[in-house]
Amino acid sequence: MRAEIISVGTELLLGHTINTDATHVARALSSLGMDLLQVHTVGDNGGRLESALREALGRAQIIITTGGLGPTDDDMTKETVARVTECPLEEDADSLRRLREYFGERPISANQLKQACLPRGSVAFPNDAGTAPGCAVPVGTGQWVILLPGPPSELLPMLENSVMPFLQKMADSVIASFMVRTFGIGEGAAALRIADLTEGGNPTAAPYASDAEMFVRVTAKAQSAAAAEALAMPVVDEVRARLGDVVYGINVTGLEAVVVDKLRESGQSLATAESCTGGLLAKRITDQPGSSEVFGYGLITYANEAKTKLLGVPEEMLAQHGAVSPEVARCMAVGVRERYEADYGLGITGVAGPGGGTESKPVGLVYVALSYGQDVWLRELRPQGRYLGREWTRRLASSHALDMLRRHLAGLPVEAQWAVEAR
Amino acid sequence: MRAEIISVGTELLLGHTINTDATHVARALSSLGMDLLQVHTVGDNGGRLESALREALGRAQIIITTGGLGPTDDDMTKETVARVTECPLEEDADSLRRLREYFGERPISANQLKQACLPRGSVAFPNDAGTAPGCAVPVGTGQWVILLPGPPSELLPMLENSVMPFLQKMADSVIASFMVRTFGIGEGAAALRIADLTEGGNPTAAPYASDAEMFVRVTAKAQSAAAAEALAMPVVDEVRARLGDVVYGINVTGLEAVVVDKLRESGQSLATAESCTGGLLAKRITDQPGSSEVFGYGLITYANEAKTKLLGVPEEMLAQHGAVSPEVARCMAVGVRERYEADYGLGITGVAGPGGGTESKPVGLVYVALSYGQDVWLRELRPQGRYLGREWTRRLASSHALDMLRRHLAGLPVEAQWAVEAR
Repeated sequence: MRAEIISVGTELLLGHTINTDATHVARALSSLGMDLLQVHTVGDNGGRLESALREALGRAQIIITTGGLGPTDDDMTKETVARVTECPLEEDADSLRRLREYFGERPISANQLKQACLPRGSVAFPNDAGTAPGCAVPVGTGQWVILLPGPPSELLPMLENSVMPFLQKMADSVIASFMVRTFGIGEGAAALRIADLTEGGNPTAAPYASDAEMFVRVTAKAQSAAAAEALAMPVVDEVRARLGDVVYGINVTGLEAVVVDKLRESGQSLATAESCTGGLLAKRITDQPGSSEVFGYGLITYANEAKTKLLGVPEEMLAQHGAVSPEVARCMAVGVRERYEADYGLGITGVAGPGGGTESKPVGLVYVALSYGQDVWLRELRPQGRYLGREWTRRLASSHALDMLRRHLAGLPVEAQWAVEAR
Repeated sequence: MRAEIISVGTELLLGHTINTDATHVARALSSLGMDLLQVHTVGDNGGRLESALREALGRAQIIITTGGLGPTDDDMTKETVARVTECPLEEDADSLRRLREYFGERPISANQLKQACLPRGSVAFPNDAGTAPGCAVPVGTGQWVILLPGPPSELLPMLENSVMPFLQKMADSVIASFMVRTFGIGEGAAALRIADLTEGGNPTAAPYASDAEMFVRVTAKAQSAAAAEALAMPVVDEVRARLGDVVYGINVTGLEAVVVDKLRESGQSLATAESCTGGLLAKRITDQPGSSEVFGYGLITYANEAKTKLLGVPEEMLAQHGAVSPEVARCMAVGVRERYEADYGLGITGVAGPGGGTESKPVGLVYVALSYGQDVWLRELRPQGRYLGREWTRRLASSHALDMLRRHLAGLPVEAQWAVEAR
C-alpha cells in the first residue's frame, strides 16, 4: 500500500521548525509495512497545497497531511482538502461536543468553532491535547486523505491512539527492520564487504554513516511480523558475520547504551576522567536511564592542576610530556579508577581545537586510555589529512573511549594503537 | 529568487532519520531573502528523484539536493542530476587531489574515486568533514542545481563556507538578520508583548521556541548590508526593550557562549558540580573554544559518596534531606567553588527520570544553585503539569545554571525561586 505525506506550514520553509511530524508519521507507516513514496512540504499556501494534493492523489492510496488545522486564517488544510476531494465541510456533532467541553464556560469564537467542521463522510480522530480534531476523508476511488494537527504534542497521541488502529485494518503487509550498528569501519569499506547483499529487493540491506559510525539497515516485508523477521534474520546474521567484531549491537541506540547495559549485567562500575571532551563522555553515559547503578564519579580535569589534584598525575609528568600525551592519558585512566574505586577507568586528553595545536601535537590529536585491573590500553587518534573541527574531534574521542570499554566487556582485544594502524 | 529543496534518502522515508538538513538549508535560504517554495523528500530511487528534479526545474531557479553523494551504490543523486541536466560526470582535478590527501597512503577504491567526478561545468564545494564534495551544476537557462552531502557534519560547514557565499552573489537583495535570544520567558508571553511588531513585511519579526528558549528573529531586506541593518536595528532595539533582561544576547550561539565570554572578559573562573545533568553543563561550557581559560574543574558526582568525598556534602545532610534537595544543591555549589578555588560554583541535583521519582520528589524536579563569595542562589524547577522526558529535564537544568551565572555576571538579580514564581 502506497502512502505520501504532505506537511503544511510556512515555519517549516523558513527553517524555524524541524519537521519531526513527518518522521513520526514515516515511522508509523513503516511499521505497518506501507510504502512511503515521498514527503512534500509546502507553506501555508492554498494553491501549492492543492497542487501537492492532486499530484499525490495520482500516486498513492493514503495521503497524510500534517499541520494547518488550527483556528487561525493561516490554517487552510481542511478547506483545501474539502475542495479537492469534493467533500464539503459539515459540522461533526461529536467534535463539537468535545470542543464545548474543552472550552467549558469560556466563550467559543467563530474561528474556534470552525474546528468542529469536517469534510463530509470523514472518520473523526479526537485530539487529546488540543482543540483541532484530525480525520480521515474518503475519496471516491477507495483512497483516504488523513488530516493530522501540526503540534507534535497533539499529533503523537492521535497517531498512536487513532491513526495506527485505523490504518492497521487496511495494511496488507508487515515490515521488520534491523539496524546493525558498527564502530571502527568506514562506510566505503563496509559497503564493499556487503555489496552483494544490498542488491535484493526483499529483504533490503543499506549502509549509511552518521557521527563517525556506520550502520547497515536490513528490512524485510511479509504477511506477518514473524514471517518478516524470519526473512530478515539470515541477512542480518550475514552482515554481522562479514563486518565482524566492529558490530556493537543491533537495534540499540548507541555505544553508550551497550556499555551501560553490559556494566549493569556484570555488576561492574566505571569512572571517567576527561580533559578535551569536557564532560561529553559522562554526558553520553548518563543519557542512559539507570546509569547511576554503574557510574558514580566523572571528573573533568581541564586544568593541569586538576589532573594532579584529583587524579594524581605527577607534576613532573605533565612538565616532561605535556598534558596531551600517552603517559598522561594512561595516568588519568588508572588514577580515576584507583582513587574512586571503580572497576574500569577511562581517560581522555587531547587538543580539541580549533586553537592550541603545535607541530608535534596538532589540533585533533587525542589520547584515550582504558584501565582495568593491572592493564591499560591506549588509542592515539590523529586527524587523517584534515582536522574536522572541535565537535567532531570530541565526539570521535568519546566514541573511542566507549568502544574500548565495549570491546573489553565483550571479551574482544582492545588494541594498543588502533587509530595509527587501522585508519 | 525562488528555491526548492529535494532531500534524498530512504532512511528519511522510513523515519530513521529526522530531516534536519532541510531545516538548515531552509534557514540559509531565508537569511538570503530567497523564497523556498517547497521541500520534497524522496528515497534512494533514481526514478522518483528524476521526476522531483524535473518538476522543481519547472518552478524554481535554485534547486538544492541533500544526500545521496556518498560512495555506495545507493548514492545516485549525482548520476541522476547529471542525466537530467545533461551535464555528464567528469573527473574534477581539485576534488581528486583532496580525496587523495584524505586517504593518504591508504588505497582508494573505485567507489571512493567516483566521488571526485562532478557534472560537467560544476562549481565544486570542498567537503571539510568527509570525502564527497558538493557542487553547483549550471542548467542551460540560468538555473542552478546545488548538490550537498547528507550527513549534517558535512553539510553544515559546506553550507556556511561555500554555498552561502555562492548564493549571496546571485541574490538580488541583501538580508540582515538578528536573532534576539532569551531565556526565562514563554513563547506565548513573548509573542503577546511584541504582537504589533510582527505584522510588518519588512522588517519582519518572528518569535519561536527551541530547547526551552525563546528567540525573536528580526529580518530586513534592502539593496545593501548597511541599509538592511539600518532598517532592522530599531525593531531589534524595540524587541529587546519590551522583553527586558530575559534577553541574553543577539546573534550569539547560546547561553554558554555568553557566560564563557563574560568570564574571560572579567578574568573570573567557574567550577561545576553535577548530579542529574551528568556532564551536560560542563560539556556545554567546553563546547566553547577557549573555555579552558575560565574552567578548570568539573565534577560529576552521580553517587552520594562522590558528593561527600569530592564536594564535602555531609553524609547526615544526604541522609536527612536526600540527594535531591535545596540543601544539597547549595552545598554542592559552595563545595565545588571553595575546594577547587573558583570564583563561581554551580551545583545541580535532581530527578532526570524516567524512573526514580517519588510523591514528594517527582521526576523532573531539579535544584540548581549558584555560589559566589558569601552568597548562594537557588532555583527549584518543577515540571508544570507534565514531565517532558530525561533529555528535556537535563537540558533545562543546565540552561538554568548558565542563566543564573549569566545574570550575576551582567549585574542582574539572580532570583531565589525562579521556577515557582515565574512559571
